[in-house]
Amino acid sequence: MRAAVRRGAALTVTDVPDVVPEAGQVVAKTLACGICGSDLHAVHHLEHGVEIGRRCGAPDTIDPAQDLVLGHEFCAEILDHGPGTEKRFAAGTRVVSTPFAFGPLGAELIGFSTRYRGALAERVVLTEALLLPVPNGLPSEIAALTEPLSVGTHAVAVANPGPGSVAMVIGCGPIGLAVIVALKRRGIGPIIAADFSPARRARAEKLGADIVVDPAATSPHDQWEALDVPATLATFGMAQLSGRSIRDAIVFECVGVPGMLQNLLEQAPPLAHIVVVGACMEDDRILPVLGINKQMRFSFVWAYSPDEFAETLHALGEGAIDGTAFLTDRVALGEAPTAFERLAAPGDQVKIVVEPWR
Amino acid sequence: MRAAVRRGAALTVTDVPDVVPEAGQVVAKTLACGICGSDLHAVHHLEHGVEIGRRCGAPDTIDPAQDLVLGHEFCAEILDHGPGTEKRFAAGTRVVSTPFAFGPLGAELIGFSTRYRGALAERVVLTEALLLPVPNGLPSEIAALTEPLSVGTHAVAVANPGPGSVAMVIGCGPIGLAVIVALKRRGIGPIIAADFSPARRARAEKLGADIVVDPAATSPHDQWEALDVPATLATFGMAQLSGRSIRDAIVFECVGVPGMLQNLLEQAPPLAHIVVVGACMEDDRILPVLGINKQMRFSFVWAYSPDEFAETLHALGEGAIDGTAFLTDRVALGEAPTAFERLAAPGDQVKIVVEPWR
Repeated sequence: MRAAVRRGAALTVTDVPDVVPEAGQVVAKTLACGICGSDLHAVHHLEHGVEIGRRCGAPDTIDPAQDLVLGHEFCAEILDHGPGTEKRFAAGTRVVSTPFAFGPLGAELIGFSTRYRGALAERVVLTEALLLPVPNGLPSEIAALTEPLSVGTHAVAVANPGPGSVAMVIGCGPIGLAVIVALKRRGIGPIIAADFSPARRARAEKLGADIVVDPAATSPHDQWEALDVPATLATFGMAQLSGRSIRDAIVFECVGVPGMLQNLLEQAPPLAHIVVVGACMEDDRILPVLGINKQMRFSFVWAYSPDEFAETLHALGEGAIDGTAFLTDRVALGEAPTAFERLAAPGDQVKIVVEPWR
Repeated sequence: MRAAVRRGAALTVTDVPDVVPEAGQVVAKTLACGICGSDLHAVHHLEHGVEIGRRCGAPDTIDPAQDLVLGHEFCAEILDHGPGTEKRFAAGTRVVSTPFAFGPLGAELIGFSTRYRGALAERVVLTEALLLPVPNGLPSEIAALTEPLSVGTHAVAVANPGPGSVAMVIGCGPIGLAVIVALKRRGIGPIIAADFSPARRARAEKLGADIVVDPAATSPHDQWEALDVPATLATFGMAQLSGRSIRDAIVFECVGVPGMLQNLLEQAPPLAHIVVVGACMEDDRILPVLGINKQMRFSFVWAYSPDEFAETLHALGEGAIDGTAFLTDRVALGEAPTAFERLAAPGDQVKIVVEPWR
């Protein structure tokens, strides 16, 4: 079958041996598979990612010397049931699932595993127990957004905002936009959103951000005071002494490059809760005492729970999320290498979905 | 009156003009005043501390070119009432209080303010509204520990441990020991404590730490697995899959030097909550993606609430805290400069209390 394969430090579309289901797995035809920032990173820096996994004591599931089939944001159609399956859903059923497979090393990530290949391919094997049928005739390219949207659902659950929360979203790529969607679904606002790209800012606004800022022109942190969040220790102290109402700040860091955390230590308000969603894979420099003085919290978040994933799919099916605002292109498998390059370049892309059946 | 004064980059005992109470303040005789790590830092690096305060938007309350009377961990005896006081407590009453004064710039820290001088002096002015009488004949040198002990009370409140929590305390100086005390008072355990000093380790054990480790000999993080905390992503995944019980890890960082946070990102278990109590005042280097992969939280804490301070004093008065385990020496005011040097050197000191009335 055809697949987009990470080989060396490049993405190549090539023929690979067809998938073979293990016990409890089904074979499915990929209908749509989104490209994630982590896929882009894997192409060029897979060895670095593997080393970081080892430092966390993660199971060693990737051999960078072998071909790696990427793709973990998928919608697929069941073709066949493997051994030991319950056949809960008939062949022809469209499904999504969390991208996990369970083998001798424990849970592995489909698309980041040499053994369990990803969905940037004509076919993919999936774990039957994790399958969720696509509801309400939701288009496949929208159902494939369940995965990145669930990251936003989870980040907002960890943030645990209340009616007095003011939220700021730094970076309006797919994850920042997913956070905005999750905040709006909980009725949290106002939402301040910041991105250098005019097109991404437009999407943030369309999805419900209340104040949208170009950080090249003005700091998003100039907005706090007007929204009743005391922006410095001096204003915080004065607000306390005067007994005036104080709102709390939650900042979602959705960029993931060096310097972002120190910038938030400097610029975010006292008591701010920083939810770190963007994964900075390089060494970074911070001045910790700023966090002490300002009594800040940092929650590093990853992925989602099965419940959060299912709830996000349900919300898409009910029309509570405008998935079309995320999609910037749909391409054939042969165009995947070009799509990776387009996403890596600064610009207006958000989510490109690959349709290997074309 | 005599006072220990930060002048230039040295501590000098000298005569300073006597204190004059403002509206709502009392004049008190210092009975005991502890020396804090932040006092040591202020002597040599006050300009740096002032600059960090400015970067947080704190009110500019210290002029490093002027004498600074340090001391914010005190027990004192009321001598006289200033204008506009309610005279809630008679002259002769022994009191403690949170080290705050309220002036035109808002709340200022007694002992870190050019205007509101600290208690390393024969006399100090205190805010009447904040005064708490010393209960049950508690010795003054123990009552003066209320302040550092309250830092531990607050850190544990932020950590919000549950019955399934395993706590690790890195660094058993006064703050680390205060955290151990607060954990024990909540019935949380087991507690792992680590310090290079044998004397500090002995005090940690005396105060109730269950496993006490010399980090020069063995990593405290070797203890997690035996205490049912999965120590790596691999063991975490396997524990989840096998359905075996999982306990959660809380780590209290009470050292505050560069490298501690990265060490915890590398060594602490997945999902660990890191409570940062030690204030690292230098630039530090971290690899943020480790926090993402391991879904860790960092809460930077500072000080305490008035309620936490009052509750800690009450616990001292009831004998629920063994304050004597903290005290390593009691000295006269003239010995304060030597005491600062002894505390700055690596070794077995924990808390030295100055008694300016001697």
